[in-house]
Amino acid sequence: MEGSAPPFPVVDSPGALKALPEEDLPKLAEQIRSVLVESLALTGGHLGPNLGVVELTIALHRVFDTPKDRFVFDVSHQGYIHKMLTGRWDRIQTIRQHEGLNGFLLRTESEHDCYGAGHAGTAVSAALGMAAGRDLHKGAEHVVAVAGDAAFTCGTTFEALNNISHTTKRFILVLNDNEWSIDRNVGAIAKYFHQLQTSPTYAHLHHKAAELVERLAGRSLRNLAGKVESGAKNLLFPSVLFEKFGLRYFGPIDGHDLPKLLRTFEFLKELDEPAVLHIITEKGRGYAPALGNPMKFHGLGPYKTETGETSPSGSPTYSQVFAEALTRYAKEDHSITAITAAMPSGTGLVHFQKEIPDRYYDVGIAEEHAALFACGLAVQGLKPFLAIYSTFFQRAYDMAIHDIGIQNLPVRLCMDRAGLSADDGPTHHGVFDIGYMRHVPNWVLMQPKDEDEFADMLWTMACHDDGPIAVRYPRGAGIGATPKKAPARLEIGAFEVVAEGTDVAVFGLGNMFEVAEEAARQLREEGLSVALINPRFIKPLDGPCIERFAKTCRVLVTLEDHVVANGFGTGVLEHLCEANLFVPVIRVGWPDQFIDHGKQALLREQHGLTAEACVNRVLALLGNSPAQS
Amino acid sequence: MEGSAPPFPVVDSPGALKALPEEDLPKLAEQIRSVLVESLALTGGHLGPNLGVVELTIALHRVFDTPKDRFVFDVSHQGYIHKMLTGRWDRIQTIRQHEGLNGFLLRTESEHDCYGAGHAGTAVSAALGMAAGRDLHKGAEHVVAVAGDAAFTCGTTFEALNNISHTTKRFILVLNDNEWSIDRNVGAIAKYFHQLQTSPTYAHLHHKAAELVERLAGRSLRNLAGKVESGAKNLLFPSVLFEKFGLRYFGPIDGHDLPKLLRTFEFLKELDEPAVLHIITEKGRGYAPALGNPMKFHGLGPYKTETGETSPSGSPTYSQVFAEALTRYAKEDHSITAITAAMPSGTGLVHFQKEIPDRYYDVGIAEEHAALFACGLAVQGLKPFLAIYSTFFQRAYDMAIHDIGIQNLPVRLCMDRAGLSADDGPTHHGVFDIGYMRHVPNWVLMQPKDEDEFADMLWTMACHDDGPIAVRYPRGAGIGATPKKAPARLEIGAFEVVAEGTDVAVFGLGNMFEVAEEAARQLREEGLSVALINPRFIKPLDGPCIERFAKTCRVLVTLEDHVVANGFGTGVLEHLCEANLFVPVIRVGWPDQFIDHGKQALLREQHGLTAEACVNRVLALLGNSPAQS
Repeated sequence: MEGSAPPFPVVDSPGALKALPEEDLPKLAEQIRSVLVESLALTGGHLGPNLGVVELTIALHRVFDTPKDRFVFDVSHQGYIHKMLTGRWDRIQTIRQHEGLNGFLLRTESEHDCYGAGHAGTAVSAALGMAAGRDLHKGAEHVVAVAGDAAFTCGTTFEALNNISHTTKRFILVLNDNEWSIDRNVGAIAKYFHQLQTSPTYAHLHHKAAELVERLAGRSLRNLAGKVESGAKNLLFPSVLFEKFGLRYFGPIDGHDLPKLLRTFEFLKELDEPAVLHIITEKGRGYAPALGNPMKFHGLGPYKTETGETSPSGSPTYSQVFAEALTRYAKEDHSITAITAAMPSGTGLVHFQKEIPDRYYDVGIAEEHAALFACGLAVQGLKPFLAIYSTFFQRAYDMAIHDIGIQNLPVRLCMDRAGLSADDGPTHHGVFDIGYMRHVPNWVLMQPKDEDEFADMLWTMACHDDGPIAVRYPRGAGIGATPKKAPARLEIGAFEVVAEGTDVAVFGLGNMFEVAEEAARQLREEGLSVALINPRFIKPLDGPCIERFAKTCRVLVTLEDHVVANGFGTGVLEHLCEANLFVPVIRVGWPDQFIDHGKQALLREQHGLTAEACVNRVLALLGNSPAQS
Repeated sequence: MEGSAPPFPVVDSPGALKALPEEDLPKLAEQIRSVLVESLALTGGHLGPNLGVVELTIALHRVFDTPKDRFVFDVSHQGYIHKMLTGRWDRIQTIRQHEGLNGFLLRTESEHDCYGAGHAGTAVSAALGMAAGRDLHKGAEHVVAVAGDAAFTCGTTFEALNNISHTTKRFILVLNDNEWSIDRNVGAIAKYFHQLQTSPTYAHLHHKAAELVERLAGRSLRNLAGKVESGAKNLLFPSVLFEKFGLRYFGPIDGHDLPKLLRTFEFLKELDEPAVLHIITEKGRGYAPALGNPMKFHGLGPYKTETGETSPSGSPTYSQVFAEALTRYAKEDHSITAITAAMPSGTGLVHFQKEIPDRYYDVGIAEEHAALFACGLAVQGLKPFLAIYSTFFQRAYDMAIHDIGIQNLPVRLCMDRAGLSADDGPTHHGVFDIGYMRHVPNWVLMQPKDEDEFADMLWTMACHDDGPIAVRYPRGAGIGATPKKAPARLEIGAFEVVAEGTDVAVFGLGNMFEVAEEAARQLREEGLSVALINPRFIKPLDGPCIERFAKTCRVLVTLEDHVVANGFGTGVLEHLCEANLFVPVIRVGWPDQFIDHGKQALLREQHGLTAEACVNRVLALLGNSPAQS
């Protein structure tokens, strides 16, 4: 952090912030921006969103008092400044590093983090619960929810809005709006009404007069609304809509205007009805490379401070392989459609969109709707490919059962980021999907050992019209197995036996196949005869294959990038139980606890998901095995 | 059906309906109502909602052509008339009976049922998918979604609304509104605008003029909106809100006025922009007892046709035990709060509401919000009891992991209707919750063997501040074990060994304990030494107890009202695997398929969840067991 010597002592507590003269706050904002830009250049992280909320966060901590008062940040990827101002300034360069700060808020990290998140659309609901709890206790503390405009594509946010006005009279919702473009003229009118609404006189006006002001404000904002572009990412959300939900609407105001933010929050603090403050902010504010490419700088890896340049990525990610293969198949098969829930880049589908825009749907952060929409397409005979991260599909779980499962609809579910989403931490690890899907009737579940097999599986899915079918695949790049020209259609439920053996049979699912291969090699060096199997199918399992090795081997080993409970290995146990076969099974996977953030290799090492740990368990077991004694 | 001889041949197909002279339609409506009232008196069912949509359903089938055109009914409990008019008139008296008609729509029941449901809030999304599919195929068919006002408390419906206008130009949403009270004056104005809007001339007006009409209509409806009561069940939803989502709004019109419905649908058929038709209907229309008690007649068992009287219920249901115990504890412990998602009667919490209204929250059909709201209460130190049916909690699954689980918040989840919800069928069976919860870290999961133990568990939950804890309990009445005066606090993870034994150990979970008890009795008659265990805890398991019986018995048996995959029995298998113990385990539960509707006893018989089936499996296994040979 050389070259950016702080203009005053580090402001790393709400108290220190409150002690600063108000005229120093812009300098503090500048300092924070410079620390963020320099620090994240080394660690990566959500730079753009945080640069957009510097003034907002300063204003919040200046006016309110955490931990007594409650700030609930939606998604909470914009919480870096909050961390800096609440005792974590000196650790901001550890963000997303193992044992460093998490990239999101975590209740366990600080008493100032009253609520953690990672998925969108939870803040308003959780904050409302806090407000209700405060009211029951007759407490005086304030509850402030901060949600970006994307949260308003989530159904949960609407469910919450629908419950505010009859639940509490003291609730502040900050709509941090960084996508709508407001033209100058309308902005000026809005400014006028904002001043009018927050003036001390206004607060004391009688009801009649207040209504008049509101009507006027409402009208002007309706004009504003007419100019706003519609679309999945730009939900129309003018004052009138909030008012229908019983919230007082203030704004839009410039979210970088510190004095105005301070005055507004002071005003809102005294209000005795639930209110929404609509602020307009700029993602990437104060850093030219981020302003020029807000999509890239939403969240990224390390970059060069001067230019924002990131290092070129290596081999293609599973997401890229997915999008390229699917686009290829969709050019041939015109019934293939692709759906994303606000993750065109993350899922790779931006590629599909470019090539086949009319069969591409981005529905916003709305996984439930995405899954139901896919059902509708399937009813009409289309082949919907629904690309959703494993962790986000938890949102659409009811649809996996109630809509897709019961109706046996041929929806193709592509679960990206299945397994550890290492640097993101517990809110993003996709380590529960086998557990929540394996017992749902009618579904076929797969995971490929490499990119080529992944393309085969996608082709198999395109051909599979019998019912629902899902593939899970990991974050990041694979081993580099470029898909062959013509994909193969896999036989449903058939494992691939890669090597035969009679002592140990190792089943390495998906991205753990590589580890299984290495474990098999090491076990062979110990003089054991080791079978190596690439299961490919989580459901249905290849019963005859499992039985064959259960009858011939002394131990079976399953490896998966998933929690051990209810996982692939448990499926094997269940099959052995049904077949009345008794053989030791070593199940390698994540333990029954939420896994921290950190590098994948480190976390695997820590929790025994390595070839070495696997080999040790096998040797220990065979050493004590009844079969050997 | 004596005494109600049809005035003309039975109209059991869309063709026959279209052949009727229009002046006969009111007589048809009358006939349908009389059949419904008489038939449901014997079977029970959703009488009120169906009596409310007789004219709507007639009008839909008169104007549109299923199966080509698509009707998507939200929840689909209001689909009885649709069934009658599409070839199932003669089977309406089999509704909710085993092998008879399902109480909801099922794609497998008729080609006229393009989409099934049972949970609320799915229709608009699924219908939008169909419309998108139709557009891709350049098809001419119409898609009509029919949703009640309660669907607009569901987040999914908003997610769908947010996606309509940029997805398709041809989409009809019928808002079947049977809760708002519209006063005469406003109704008259609304009627005027409706006539204006649907006149043939209007359809050809230029854009400017149309805008004028809309503005006028909008204004009058805003006045209307001001008179509507707010609250969880009465979401404000005037024209302006739909218009903000890019839908043309028509109505409100009288949903029992057949000529007007017909004219309106003819008009909407030709419209080239997505539209919502707001109709006002009366639940229970034409049947005095239902009009007098709409809550009771929403869905009920058999009743006397003349009076609507139902037979008095027997012993208290688990829901009643829940509500009574919780209310009792809450009177002592003022931090106990209760949350329901629109099921005050179903969950029994109406009792809690009456006694402790300020700590009771009904959030509407919004399970995700309910769970998040509970998190907020827990953050504030309250003890939230979240009562949600097992099948509906699937909607809040992400919150079980992302919010409650990761943050280890002491949310108390009470999963009603866990296990078979017999007469309702596959959309309502709560047979997946162990599967989806068992692998989520931090959760404690329980199921009581009887009502008294249930009260103990609720007390244990009240005392358990360490993290999330859930109890699952079945629909209907228990065995009649009245809760003792002072509840006992259970030791977390301790099984109750009811009887010792050395040949067979039978673990009967929750409502299957009774079956386990009987199986143990029968096995003892076969000369076997049988241990009987009431597990109480699904997670954590009682490892030492399992290990002890695994070491001393020749076979373990687990029984649960849940699918076998990923169930309680699977947890036992996992534990045995970790403990490196090898003993045959017979897991009794539901198979890997969606279970039909029907009486519980019959379905248990069919799928082997009886003492007899269990005994046969044990004897067969012991006969062939290696230990015996």
